[in-house]
Amino acid sequence: MKNYRLLLVGFGNVGQGFAQLLIDRKDALAADFGCSFTIVGVTTRSRGSVYATDGLDPQALLDAVQSGILNGVDCDHTGWSVEDMLANAEADIMVETSYTNLETAEPASSYIRQALQNGMHVSTANKGPVALNYAELAGLANEKGLQLQAEGTVMSGTPAVALGLDQLKAAGVTQVKGILNGTTNYILTQMEDGMSYADALKVAQDLGYAEADPAGDVEGHDAAGKVVILANMLLNAGIKPADVATDGITNISSADVDAAKAAGERWKLIGAIEVVDGAIKASVSPQRLSTAHPLANVMGATNAITYTTEAMGDVTLIGAGAGRVETGYSILQDLLAIHRLAG
Amino acid sequence: MKNYRLLLVGFGNVGQGFAQLLIDRKDALAADFGCSFTIVGVTTRSRGSVYATDGLDPQALLDAVQSGILNGVDCDHTGWSVEDMLANAEADIMVETSYTNLETAEPASSYIRQALQNGMHVSTANKGPVALNYAELAGLANEKGLQLQAEGTVMSGTPAVALGLDQLKAAGVTQVKGILNGTTNYILTQMEDGMSYADALKVAQDLGYAEADPAGDVEGHDAAGKVVILANMLLNAGIKPADVATDGITNISSADVDAAKAAGERWKLIGAIEVVDGAIKASVSPQRLSTAHPLANVMGATNAITYTTEAMGDVTLIGAGAGRVETGYSILQDLLAIHRLAG
Repeated sequence: MKNYRLLLVGFGNVGQGFAQLLIDRKDALAADFGCSFTIVGVTTRSRGSVYATDGLDPQALLDAVQSGILNGVDCDHTGWSVEDMLANAEADIMVETSYTNLETAEPASSYIRQALQNGMHVSTANKGPVALNYAELAGLANEKGLQLQAEGTVMSGTPAVALGLDQLKAAGVTQVKGILNGTTNYILTQMEDGMSYADALKVAQDLGYAEADPAGDVEGHDAAGKVVILANMLLNAGIKPADVATDGITNISSADVDAAKAAGERWKLIGAIEVVDGAIKASVSPQRLSTAHPLANVMGATNAITYTTEAMGDVTLIGAGAGRVETGYSILQDLLAIHRLAG
Repeated sequence: MKNYRLLLVGFGNVGQGFAQLLIDRKDALAADFGCSFTIVGVTTRSRGSVYATDGLDPQALLDAVQSGILNGVDCDHTGWSVEDMLANAEADIMVETSYTNLETAEPASSYIRQALQNGMHVSTANKGPVALNYAELAGLANEKGLQLQAEGTVMSGTPAVALGLDQLKAAGVTQVKGILNGTTNYILTQMEDGMSYADALKVAQDLGYAEADPAGDVEGHDAAGKVVILANMLLNAGIKPADVATDGITNISSADVDAAKAAGERWKLIGAIEVVDGAIKASVSPQRLSTAHPLANVMGATNAITYTTEAMGDVTLIGAGAGRVETGYSILQDLLAIHRLAG
């Protein structure tokens, strides 16, 4: 049985969903994969920081974070900054789920660099560093003989990244089209059921799909970040969010939705990457798809992606694009990939 | 650059599609994966057998097999049986695509045993040995520190097996439902467009989707074989084809299809695995699905599979289920998995 010592940087929804999975699936992981995971350190921005050489109890961490502060759990050290933790913790893998900044990719990129320099593999669900610095960080990991895994950055735990990188890359990917933002797909689905844009947005906000300031979703920036990640991870495109021609759903009216419906079509916000004569074109835009298209039937907050390849034609993956346990599961996939490749 | 020496047992559509991919994608494989593949031996049932220590030219093999016999290509030995080839060839991996027998799994199972005993990894697209002897063969591979990969046995090169085994197993799979046979899905699609069962079957035969004796497809046996493979690989079910309650599409009438359509539903031939109180129930049967179900919108010869999991809910994969290059691509995926895991 191989055990991995984990350092969690960030302990919000994703980290908590992951900790819950470590509890729920502990026996299955041992039986099916021959591995176990021990959380030795957790750092957060505002809920404290704890480290225990012999490991922290995941249920105690979940209970403590619900009540506001981690520092009361049974541990050896409290209060270490991320930098102190990375310098002092004995850990095999850093699980990085700190807050996303798509403009600077900080402080997450610095954390990832330091972890790799200190000999830790990295799993991150953070779009910032992967969108902005993937080539550099993957190069550093490679140089150090370490893994950098980031399944959760696109479609949460639905394995869109692994499907592209591990299974389809060798088929010659020529185009990627995806419904990569659940909030906008939920709003468009509600509009097709007769709701106005404003009302549908309100419902999405009430359900927690959309933030109080919904611009990141409805203007297409969240989807654009994922397009950049896929283009850079899969096709070494070397692009940045500003290189993605980005249009959201704010100009789609109920009349537009009805007109599409009458024509046997549906509006979807599509993140797209096309390889044209060796050059890569990336975009996010509302598109009218025939209901025969596999992406057209993906409704509500569900996400989906179609890879078009030379050898396999179209391959489509449909699944959750968000959620506490679902994104937590992306971390578990990253760790199992590290176990397969480096264990 | 890591080079792998390959022994091809069988050189029909799948082997030829794979050889074509080795030619077409050689540069990309070197650049993206740092590996190359050399075919050193090929054995066939009726088209000869060739071996060359320094490798055979894949294009010459394709040309020769089209003209009927391999033995004229530039090589060191001709006429070796599979057993002789396995005993004498210097090879790293056996690519096994000989003919399928779902009742005895022979001679493929014997070939796989001999290859593993002789220290070769195995990639097979052959349903027989994986459906009937997976636990034994995977155990032998494991004992020898070798890989047994079989992506092509379900949905050809669409990575249904890797999705289940590598990405979703840890999520706790509770149910699998798939459109696992393209011929029957093509026939049902034609019937929905107004054709009779008999006419649709005739068209499927003319297109090469269905065999002259269509029983294996239309009575559900092909799908049942794939259900057994998924149940045994993913859930260690230890079942055999006879354990799958199997019903085909031969009793579906145009009136049935029209009645479903009127109710907003569609008939699909569904291979299903359910985990109920720890016991595994496997079946193949025609089912009426709501058009809101992701499998309901999969039309024509396309295949699809929905994994239901505890952590991720439903995850659906849609893609080709057959084809020369598509199934050839499953072999390439197997080889890249071997390269990742054992390279």
